Amino acid sequence: MQDAYGKLVERLGEVYDLGAAAGLLSWDQRTKMPAAGARARADQLATLTRLAYERFTADEIGELLEELKPYEASLDYDSDEASLVRVARRDYEKARRVPLELRAETARAAALAEPVWREARLASDFDSFLPHLERAIELKREYVACFEPYDDPYDPLLDDYEPEMKTAEVRRVFADLKAGLVPLVAAIAERSDAAEVPQLVGPFPLEAQQEVELTLLRAFGFTDEEWRLDETAHPFASKGGPQDIRLTTRHVPDSLTSLFACMHEFGHGLYEHQVDRGLYRTPLQRGASLGVHESQSRMWENMVGRSLAFWRGFYPTLQAAFPDALAGLDVDGFYRAVNRVEPSLVRIHADEVTYNLHIILRFELEQELIGGRLPAHELPAAWDARVEQYLGIEVPDVADGCLQDVHWSSGSFGYFPTYALGNVVAGQLWERIRADLPDLEQAIERGEFAPLREWLREHVHRHGRKFLPRELVERVVGAAIDPQPLLGYLRAKFGAIYGL
Amino acid sequence: MQDAYGKLVERLGEVYDLGAAAGLLSWDQRTKMPAAGARARADQLATLTRLAYERFTADEIGELLEELKPYEASLDYDSDEASLVRVARRDYEKARRVPLELRAETARAAALAEPVWREARLASDFDSFLPHLERAIELKREYVACFEPYDDPYDPLLDDYEPEMKTAEVRRVFADLKAGLVPLVAAIAERSDAAEVPQLVGPFPLEAQQEVELTLLRAFGFTDEEWRLDETAHPFASKGGPQDIRLTTRHVPDSLTSLFACMHEFGHGLYEHQVDRGLYRTPLQRGASLGVHESQSRMWENMVGRSLAFWRGFYPTLQAAFPDALAGLDVDGFYRAVNRVEPSLVRIHADEVTYNLHIILRFELEQELIGGRLPAHELPAAWDARVEQYLGIEVPDVADGCLQDVHWSSGSFGYFPTYALGNVVAGQLWERIRADLPDLEQAIERGEFAPLREWLREHVHRHGRKFLPRELVERVVGAAIDPQPLLGYLRAKFGAIYGL
Repeated sequence: MQDAYGKLVERLGEVYDLGAAAGLLSWDQRTKMPAAGARARADQLATLTRLAYERFTADEIGELLEELKPYEASLDYDSDEASLVRVARRDYEKARRVPLELRAETARAAALAEPVWREARLASDFDSFLPHLERAIELKREYVACFEPYDDPYDPLLDDYEPEMKTAEVRRVFADLKAGLVPLVAAIAERSDAAEVPQLVGPFPLEAQQEVELTLLRAFGFTDEEWRLDETAHPFASKGGPQDIRLTTRHVPDSLTSLFACMHEFGHGLYEHQVDRGLYRTPLQRGASLGVHESQSRMWENMVGRSLAFWRGFYPTLQAAFPDALAGLDVDGFYRAVNRVEPSLVRIHADEVTYNLHIILRFELEQELIGGRLPAHELPAAWDARVEQYLGIEVPDVADGCLQDVHWSSGSFGYFPTYALGNVVAGQLWERIRADLPDLEQAIERGEFAPLREWLREHVHRHGRKFLPRELVERVVGAAIDPQPLLGYLRAKFGAIYGL
Repeated sequence: MQDAYGKLVERLGEVYDLGAAAGLLSWDQRTKMPAAGARARADQLATLTRLAYERFTADEIGELLEELKPYEASLDYDSDEASLVRVARRDYEKARRVPLELRAETARAAALAEPVWREARLASDFDSFLPHLERAIELKREYVACFEPYDDPYDPLLDDYEPEMKTAEVRRVFADLKAGLVPLVAAIAERSDAAEVPQLVGPFPLEAQQEVELTLLRAFGFTDEEWRLDETAHPFASKGGPQDIRLTTRHVPDSLTSLFACMHEFGHGLYEHQVDRGLYRTPLQRGASLGVHESQSRMWENMVGRSLAFWRGFYPTLQAAFPDALAGLDVDGFYRAVNRVEPSLVRIHADEVTYNLHIILRFELEQELIGGRLPAHELPAAWDARVEQYLGIEVPDVADGCLQDVHWSSGSFGYFPTYALGNVVAGQLWERIRADLPDLEQAIERGEFAPLREWLREHVHRHGRKFLPRELVERVVGAAIDPQPLLGYLRAKFGAIYGL
């Protein structure tokens, strides 16, 4: 039995290495690669991905997993060994259900669709993208059919990002979230003439931005020995290994978006950095799900990085870095400026409150598209109507409407809800952290982040992918996924800012 | 037959991609990776290397090669298809002769030896390195035994870097080279009191170095679309793909070594960049051998980059970049300064003339070590005696003696001769280029490098690895490998500088 387990670990280690190599190649592609290297890089990634898939879905893996059933049953559910076999079996069974041809065709369709989407958005021309969208939906339906029976055709899509989370559950969570957010947004809108919120206009010279970002990241826990920060077009976090964490950001001279992107990506990076080293080279050596991952990035970006306590401590450093832009603005004004709430068209620029409404409308539209209740050609009208309904604003241009996100061009249906689930989970964790660490605000103001890091390591990060998102939340906060803590946090924070 | 050929190409393409991915991971390790990423990187590289080896040495490849024999025989020797089958068969037969355990043990021994060598060199302590050197030699003898019968036990080692070149041939070439160099070095030494050669002492501020290097590389043919330049500890060139060429260099503030390193690595990079694109994803899509590669790097570094014509054109740019260091030095003085000849202890700092003597003594000692005529513990004494004999100087410290190079710690016996073979081949090519391009010097002075690049593409680069080094030289210059053109070039150049 030990022998079969050893063999499984060896095989999975190989698959892990191939995945890590592919991850590094992707990081390089998005940060360092000369543009003309794209074709060869696509070949390399295709080969690594195919080899990893072939080796992971080999009959031998299935036989080992079968042989290991009694071993798994003899162990604690929480043990590394039982978790490894359990998660590997789940991944294996999912991977074996989808024919290689469908995977290849989906990848091919995505590669064709992405440049068309890019052009279509620039030209505000939905019709040119429509056939690709229809094809993406068709392929996703074929994918969904591989997983029959299911409660909801959206379930298998969601499951790829949030293991074993059901559409019905997300609908329930988002219904409560929406019910809380819509009146909050309306109340803030009513006050926004009265409440004075300064606007940040810069200048924020790039070198000073880079310097202040590294100062901040080092305070958070970034070290040159184990981390990097690089420039990219669309910020992300990546890892070359458990002790090789790579953040990326994008600088613009008239705003501090890069600073907040650094905090956000730090949250992702820290999660990967703090997974138990004993899980190295196994499928458990990463975050539990995209939603749980996003809970970490949003926590560092918003709950820490947009808090008054943090800026009370860090604002003098920022002010010194940008005297021209910030000399006349005090910390309270700055705090209000980086917490301005305003319904807007584009998700990635949305504030902490309205952001979730952007997600909810995408989640609803995705279900209708996949379920066949909304024909793809009616998407722009449906989109615009929902933006009006949830955010109270009109969409003047499809480029800032349903063409704004890359996700659907690559067939990533089921991905969007993880963003709002991340906020919801962050709200639940934050409530628990504040109860466990009564000194948290003062520590943050003093620039001490070790207590928060250590709490997250102990309760969330070290487990890696051992537990399902639902299990993890249940373990940490003793409850199901629930938007009320997030709503309470938002009401308290923005109630104070806007005098509600 | 077409079917078998297609299958072979597909399999080799996969092996190529794995190699390219490993190459990118190595580049990253030496330029970008946070130090703590080393362990995971070693795992990733081991997995990629092992998979590439397993897939390349699979029985299926042998069967395809066997099946393709009549197809190969029906084609022109020079055709891409015949060359692919021929070179793949050669690689396959070599790879199959060496047991995987011996490869693994050699890699393990090298990984253990390298840090010991590093320490030993710092401490000038040969004895601590001796057991590792003895083990490396022992393993190399086991490796050699896999290739019996051979004319010379050194042949199989040389063959890994210079396909089908024989030790006897290199001995002959190096004997003639030495016979020409030793009196040239002595004659220069006699004149060096009389001939005034300025010394460059800087300052050469790093930012100005970087800027002037990019100006120079762009004139040579570097573009941001297809090339990169990064900082590293030991400069090298690498490729992420045929249109993704990566040079590296190392800056020091008091010397221009980095500028010449850039020219050197450009020569390597240009070779890879100009291999025929039709050979992409095959084992032919790289340089013919290490020696031929070195002929390209040394040509750009020395024959172009240390020529009077080049500096007549480029010196004003350099002078403007380093006014403090160079304002008082005219172009003739600078040309003499970067062509100073002086016997010295350390190979990597050696000038164009004495460099080859450093190589010849290593080549001789390697043969004696592998052949068992020189016991490893006697190496320091043998080394010092030969340095005295060839260069006329005493070795005061083993750190600058037989411990100076990393090669033997990694078991790279047979590698050194490729450096001097590169110089020899560069001499032959250069003679032919000057005959074919009578305007070459003037073009170089005007900063026009396209004629040289195109000549190299047409006659050398585009063939990739289709021909053996010997075949390639024979095709281009119509002669065997011969040191007389190099000696003629050195006598003319340094005769003028030193007034011989």
